[in-house]
Amino acid sequence: MVTSIASVCLSGGLTDKIHACAEAGFDGIEIMDSDLTVTHESPEEIRALCERLGLRIDMFQPFRDAEGVDDETFTDTLRRAREKFRTAGRLGTDLMLVCSNAGTATVDDDALAARQLGELADLAAEHGIRLAYEALAWGRFVNDYRHAWRIVQMADRPNLGTCLDSFHILSRGHDPSAIEDIDGEKIFFLQLADAPDLSMDVLSWSRHHRLFPGEGSFDLVTFLRHVLRAGYTGPLSLEVFNDTFRQTDTQRTAAHARRSLTWLTDRVAVAEGHQTGRIPPPQPPRGVDFVELAGADLSAVDHMLEQLGFTFRGTHHRKPVRLWAFGSARLILDEQDRQEAPHLSGIGLSVDDAAQASGRAQALGAPPAFRRTYAGDHELKAVASPDGTQVYWNDRPAETWAEEFVGGNDPDADVIAVVDHINLSYPWQDFDEAVLFSTSVLGLDAQASSEVPGPRGLVRSQVMRSPDGAVRVPLNLAPPTAPNPPRHVAVRCRDVIGVAERARARGLHFLPVPDNYYDDLAARFALDGELIDRLRGLDLLYDRDDDGEFIHFYTPTLGDIFLELVERRGSYDGYGAPNAPVRLAAQRPRL
Amino acid sequence: MVTSIASVCLSGGLTDKIHACAEAGFDGIEIMDSDLTVTHESPEEIRALCERLGLRIDMFQPFRDAEGVDDETFTDTLRRAREKFRTAGRLGTDLMLVCSNAGTATVDDDALAARQLGELADLAAEHGIRLAYEALAWGRFVNDYRHAWRIVQMADRPNLGTCLDSFHILSRGHDPSAIEDIDGEKIFFLQLADAPDLSMDVLSWSRHHRLFPGEGSFDLVTFLRHVLRAGYTGPLSLEVFNDTFRQTDTQRTAAHARRSLTWLTDRVAVAEGHQTGRIPPPQPPRGVDFVELAGADLSAVDHMLEQLGFTFRGTHHRKPVRLWAFGSARLILDEQDRQEAPHLSGIGLSVDDAAQASGRAQALGAPPAFRRTYAGDHELKAVASPDGTQVYWNDRPAETWAEEFVGGNDPDADVIAVVDHINLSYPWQDFDEAVLFSTSVLGLDAQASSEVPGPRGLVRSQVMRSPDGAVRVPLNLAPPTAPNPPRHVAVRCRDVIGVAERARARGLHFLPVPDNYYDDLAARFALDGELIDRLRGLDLLYDRDDDGEFIHFYTPTLGDIFLELVERRGSYDGYGAPNAPVRLAAQRPRL
Repeated sequence: MVTSIASVCLSGGLTDKIHACAEAGFDGIEIMDSDLTVTHESPEEIRALCERLGLRIDMFQPFRDAEGVDDETFTDTLRRAREKFRTAGRLGTDLMLVCSNAGTATVDDDALAARQLGELADLAAEHGIRLAYEALAWGRFVNDYRHAWRIVQMADRPNLGTCLDSFHILSRGHDPSAIEDIDGEKIFFLQLADAPDLSMDVLSWSRHHRLFPGEGSFDLVTFLRHVLRAGYTGPLSLEVFNDTFRQTDTQRTAAHARRSLTWLTDRVAVAEGHQTGRIPPPQPPRGVDFVELAGADLSAVDHMLEQLGFTFRGTHHRKPVRLWAFGSARLILDEQDRQEAPHLSGIGLSVDDAAQASGRAQALGAPPAFRRTYAGDHELKAVASPDGTQVYWNDRPAETWAEEFVGGNDPDADVIAVVDHINLSYPWQDFDEAVLFSTSVLGLDAQASSEVPGPRGLVRSQVMRSPDGAVRVPLNLAPPTAPNPPRHVAVRCRDVIGVAERARARGLHFLPVPDNYYDDLAARFALDGELIDRLRGLDLLYDRDDDGEFIHFYTPTLGDIFLELVERRGSYDGYGAPNAPVRLAAQRPRL
Repeated sequence: MVTSIASVCLSGGLTDKIHACAEAGFDGIEIMDSDLTVTHESPEEIRALCERLGLRIDMFQPFRDAEGVDDETFTDTLRRAREKFRTAGRLGTDLMLVCSNAGTATVDDDALAARQLGELADLAAEHGIRLAYEALAWGRFVNDYRHAWRIVQMADRPNLGTCLDSFHILSRGHDPSAIEDIDGEKIFFLQLADAPDLSMDVLSWSRHHRLFPGEGSFDLVTFLRHVLRAGYTGPLSLEVFNDTFRQTDTQRTAAHARRSLTWLTDRVAVAEGHQTGRIPPPQPPRGVDFVELAGADLSAVDHMLEQLGFTFRGTHHRKPVRLWAFGSARLILDEQDRQEAPHLSGIGLSVDDAAQASGRAQALGAPPAFRRTYAGDHELKAVASPDGTQVYWNDRPAETWAEEFVGGNDPDADVIAVVDHINLSYPWQDFDEAVLFSTSVLGLDAQASSEVPGPRGLVRSQVMRSPDGAVRVPLNLAPPTAPNPPRHVAVRCRDVIGVAERARARGLHFLPVPDNYYDDLAARFALDGELIDRLRGLDLLYDRDDDGEFIHFYTPTLGDIFLELVERRGSYDGYGAPNAPVRLAAQRPRL
């Protein structure tokens, strides 16, 4: 299927948008009238630029307030339309969108609407223009796609069809299955947008909060299957009004938008059992193979890992890189980075087929990550995630590559531990892109998001996890005025109190927890006094729900990274969210 | 009346909040349980700090999920409560808030709720604690203040009263007049919050979008009058959950919050005809006396004013300050600033009583502006607005102070012109503060706000104007990732086309307007071709509505300032909003 995107989805000027769309690999673009109006380039220049870049101008849009009006108003409608048809012709497109009347409509009469749309179509025909009539969710009299289609049928003009927009249909809860009743030839255009599940008026929801497919809660796979079954063969076009994407980097947003269509068409092809339109299948990670920290001097990290009871597994035989392990939780410390403070630099995921995972990532437009490899080293495929963290895939046993590390100790067979979760943080404007990357490239699923009050504002937390929960990546969204919170790696063990006691005995002091927290804990849960005292003495945090208990502690932050040690009891499946404000307050930089 | 504020209104840690509240002049504070939990200071330290700063701890809150539950759950409720009553005692407050049950309530039975609240009150009495029961707007069974009051009456305990919260009452559209039926002695506490008129679920609205009084659409004056008539004499306390204020500077937000209560109590005192609680009355400006631009070198501004046809009125007899005039539009160029590029530095407003205006501003906590004056100079009172622009008040004729300028030309009697509007810009997080400053200190009224798409995101525009429209100050709110747009001064004249032609003849080129704009104009309005050509030839912009027409142009930007020349025909009362995207696109910095 060919792809397209409305120019309103992106920031910048119209020519910037056109360049970004072409570079991201779109086949076409919808030119918004308002984008053309503020641009110095003539319609002929825009047309020529698109031709040079191989971008089709699929539609010029929108034309508003056409039908359901009195005769005098309609005379002016035809006058307005003539001007716009000329502009469409200068742009070299033969298609214009006509939105159902939300402003000036005064007559609720389908016969009148059909007659007026018919006349408009006849005028359009004189200019070689086709019209796609769309029901806006807030149209005055026409706000249901089935209603718009009935009027198109009544008007019965060869150059008048309908335009379907997933937002206008799914936001109203209209059943999309009746799309299959529409003659596919008469679906002149298709606009796709996802959206979060918000309870607000549909106009504000549409104008500010639309998302690219895969980022919201609409079932666009089912929606698109209905459209394709109706026989539609035109472009899949994105029309996303979003306050954030209006501000973010034009090229980056275009790439991210394009990824959403690749993801969607792949999902549809798989659901339909097609062979075309498919990319390598997702490889949901079976576990975290390793986590890599980088920095110019990681000796403080070595020291802390030793205090926590990690085993030093050795130094890489060719590079200034060290391996530490705590059970199956492997941390690689990479000092090839000469500049920066300690930070999270890479995540290694265990998958069934690394080549497939990597192939899928590249098909989804993820940039390959550069990694210096030496003869004899195991080469892992990697891409860069939106925050720059490199993601590696490994389909061999971990100990295969661990052989490259020499001079260390054997693993401690008594320690049973794994990486429980890896907490990433994003500036607010990159959040939706991060969610789509996690679902489409990493094969993780989005859980319900939550908000945590911190001293610098609310931090939104969105957990992404693999289907069986073996890999969990909570994404944290910092408020706009606050710096990104540090990232962290949580290691799950069987006896976190024992681990804490031994680490404390080795001189490690954890993130300090206020006494008031333990008083509140005693009020919330009827815990026995001895346990409370033990938690208090070690700066341990506690949570409980119907499924089980959670005990955890945080290390101090080194550079941009800290560790968490956790123990899950029973079937506790959360992350100690009630304790997150305690952490945020304790980690607050003192000014 | 004494004032108070919930700690949740502010950013930072609890001790920062306490210091800021005391400094802003609040009499008391409500300590939120969640703020105490994450704090290292003990309740006794918090109590002692508040005592030292003269801040009363008016309430400890909230206690949730108390009533309407089964017996087993209620046993645990009493256990939880006992711990929290102890904490309240340690804080030295005798009042706790009990919210109507929104989480665990299973029994819709007022008698049961009253019995359980009664038992809870009896337990509280043992700790010397009083309870204020409040109906949350989203309480499971109790979500109306009248219902909560009935249950309090049924429980009939001396230490059980009700708490009224304006948000929970007005967001549901409940009639506040029945507040007068409540025994004033039994209103144990009053929480005040304003809110914008949003159509979204009430829980999200409450948790994220509350505002301080005077910043939203609730009629808090009427609300508070009902509460006072009921006989309430306790604190007026602010409880504002707002995503932005959680991030902004603690001290600044506290000062801004305190201003809202001064404004509100003044409005109520005036409405009730009281003499106490009043501050000097507002002085709605009768016109713009002058606008001051500052910078190290303003010669480019001189040049542009000359091209526009302004008259040079002279240089100040003691300072490097020049005066230009176009009819009654007076621009002062102040080169005492050695550092900065040209920018808007001050606004002079004509009022009936400058001393009253200045006294009111200072009563509302506006910081007095420093201004060097010399012997013999007219001294104008001034304060700094939230963006740093100085605001002066003058109750004498303009030409009084204009005598200080010498060596210029006489005013051109043929020119009829005034300052039409002054466009200020704010970063998004200071916007609500700017609105409250404009209403309470400047005596302007907020008009409906609008949003304008720009190449770097949506710009929100909020027009503030004096009752008769003589002074208009549109506030522009930049998106978080974008720099503040430049400020501008619009001068209204009678023949903007003539002004433009003469300025063009003197070599001034205006902000260039795209040809496409004129094609769109021709489509939107049936303008005659000659007018379109004239507008196009001069880069003039045009708008029309049912009231009249608007023609205007923009100068190039010098530093952080540009000028606009406008002509209003008929009763046109807008600002050419449809043309704002053209300006934003043309002014976009090229990267």
